[in-house]
Amino acid sequence: MADAAVVGAGMTEFGVHDTTLQELFGEAAFTALNDAGVETGALDALYFGNAMGGQTENETHLGPRVASHIGAAGLPVQRFEDACATSANAFKNAVQAVEAGVHDIALVGGVERCTPVTGKETPEMTRIFASASHRQYEQPTGLTFPGVFALLTKRHMHEHGTTEEQLAEVAVKNHAHGTHNPRAHFGKETTVEEVLEGPVVADPFRLMDCCPFSDGASAVVVISGDLADSFDAPVDVGGVGHATDVVPLGDKADLTATQAARDAASAAYEEAGITADDADFAEVHDCFTGAEVLASEAIGFAPDGEGGTYAAEGRTSLSGDRPINPSGGLKAKGHPIGATGTAQIVELTEQIRGTVGERQVADADVGVAHNLGGDAATTVVSVLEAHS
Amino acid sequence: MADAAVVGAGMTEFGVHDTTLQELFGEAAFTALNDAGVETGALDALYFGNAMGGQTENETHLGPRVASHIGAAGLPVQRFEDACATSANAFKNAVQAVEAGVHDIALVGGVERCTPVTGKETPEMTRIFASASHRQYEQPTGLTFPGVFALLTKRHMHEHGTTEEQLAEVAVKNHAHGTHNPRAHFGKETTVEEVLEGPVVADPFRLMDCCPFSDGASAVVVISGDLADSFDAPVDVGGVGHATDVVPLGDKADLTATQAARDAASAAYEEAGITADDADFAEVHDCFTGAEVLASEAIGFAPDGEGGTYAAEGRTSLSGDRPINPSGGLKAKGHPIGATGTAQIVELTEQIRGTVGERQVADADVGVAHNLGGDAATTVVSVLEAHS
Repeated sequence: MADAAVVGAGMTEFGVHDTTLQELFGEAAFTALNDAGVETGALDALYFGNAMGGQTENETHLGPRVASHIGAAGLPVQRFEDACATSANAFKNAVQAVEAGVHDIALVGGVERCTPVTGKETPEMTRIFASASHRQYEQPTGLTFPGVFALLTKRHMHEHGTTEEQLAEVAVKNHAHGTHNPRAHFGKETTVEEVLEGPVVADPFRLMDCCPFSDGASAVVVISGDLADSFDAPVDVGGVGHATDVVPLGDKADLTATQAARDAASAAYEEAGITADDADFAEVHDCFTGAEVLASEAIGFAPDGEGGTYAAEGRTSLSGDRPINPSGGLKAKGHPIGATGTAQIVELTEQIRGTVGERQVADADVGVAHNLGGDAATTVVSVLEAHS
Repeated sequence: MADAAVVGAGMTEFGVHDTTLQELFGEAAFTALNDAGVETGALDALYFGNAMGGQTENETHLGPRVASHIGAAGLPVQRFEDACATSANAFKNAVQAVEAGVHDIALVGGVERCTPVTGKETPEMTRIFASASHRQYEQPTGLTFPGVFALLTKRHMHEHGTTEEQLAEVAVKNHAHGTHNPRAHFGKETTVEEVLEGPVVADPFRLMDCCPFSDGASAVVVISGDLADSFDAPVDVGGVGHATDVVPLGDKADLTATQAARDAASAAYEEAGITADDADFAEVHDCFTGAEVLASEAIGFAPDGEGGTYAAEGRTSLSGDRPINPSGGLKAKGHPIGATGTAQIVELTEQIRGTVGERQVADADVGVAHNLGGDAATTVVSVLEAHS
């Protein structure tokens, strides 16, 4: 028996939402609570993630506000912010608290609005995103996140011969997956040719190598493992690993290792008592196509240097040996920063339950979520498993 | 034996610091580590608080950055933000994780720069602070935090006859305490007359009823209780309570109760196995003089309605029956938002150790910290006790 289980999962469509953060979060929260069959009054705590509400909408201290909105005022709730790994960190802390017996039932989730509904256009949002890089050593150089991942990916191309065509294959795969996801920001396919003809954002990335700015929310209900059998469709939490890496990029020992992801994956696999080979599929943090290549290697789905080859050969597609990003990933599903971590947990939960229809991974018993923040400076890796 | 103990405490001077956030945090962190006799390499985790770095300095995802700066890159570290209750929430989560056996040794702390060194002047900082109030119902009305606490305090005056002179006595007391604290932002005394002659900020608050904008950092080392005896000067964590309340102000059931503080105090006292009467002193969140009056009642140091009287009678001064804010409180010590919560834990630790010189509370065996965020929407109450 696992010490914690996910018994409810919900998310909004990712895309453009011109509504308040608390209402957007509420939609995901109530979907998760309804899915679990849990009343708001039964919750012991709320673990909440939002990355940039202060900068985008002058909204901080959102924890009590979203709790009030869903009728849970009074509960202990705190906001987590760890750039793009924001709500995976909320998930980690919730799981630890439930496993420790501090809570029986906790709601975990995140929300973000990144589109112009915040009043901020692309250049200003890009500056805000860049706040997660190094303030003294990176921001003054003009480095923004397409550049951060372009540098990591260029190094991978130099060391391993990864090609722009292989990167494009990642986008093609994830867009194809996204066509089967009704909550995805992009529901249309693309082609290698279309990707390679796009305008350059940061060499080697073209427009279609980059995930979109999205609005959205996601939430899951986490419960103590000993309560799991009283719920309809529990999915066990096998393990959660969390590690950081040195900031800035220039200080990293190895640019293509994304060492925090390796450390987090090792910790998660060890806690779950598995190896990477035991995992059936993964949701990884493909903010850029190159990021998926690095992630697929860091979590042990592809040998080092072969992440691009694996994608190009279709080994990580829905019909391949081990699918990556069946949801469409950040690339096609979308990337509302603070919602992305728990949205990955939503996808793992639904895949393991076998309820996702055309994008269902065959025999999806063990799923891995890889949620990265900043200059690959934070990664949380979670393992979810079929309930035993 | 308590399940967790504080074995090291450190903070910078609170005031004006024209240095980077990671360097400022590093000063507090290294002071705490040296105090504990713990090497950075012995740490298992870092729990980090910063409230407004994104808005003030375009700095988010600070966790890995401060970890890198103190030589702890790789450790799990996440940023907490809960307005003024930011680092008390980091402390709560660290204590829970240590108590659960997830970590043996964790560093907890926070940092903030609120003075014009951020490039932001008072009006812009006031707008940023207001981001912790309700975005839709309060911010558009022009309500800022002096106004939030003025409304709560006016209601207390209406219900209980609390006077401006009594509020002034809180400022006089905390400034007197601050003269004995070498790390305080204000080291000078004030008088009731001086307070009452100050310019009105938000009726009934005059300038000297308000805490200053400060820069600073604080940190404590939290360890598993079974390791406490191997350290020189452990202080036990008796309990930590955390609750929230409905937002906005207009929806609160009782404006003067600060219900989250009552709920958090009840939880902390129950966990510690004490009542309010067993506590010897407290550090409370006196962002405004009226806030201390409400806090002293919410944590059970004064009967409801008598917080002002207690202050005016000197019962909460260093020479009174139960001192409140021997450090000088936010009012005189200063209030670098994200550093305030753990700074209260620093003061409790040093008071219980009996090492604070002229501001020493007699027989300080049980101390209470009350750290509040937003529209009294979050409160964390911690009980620290002499090691047993």
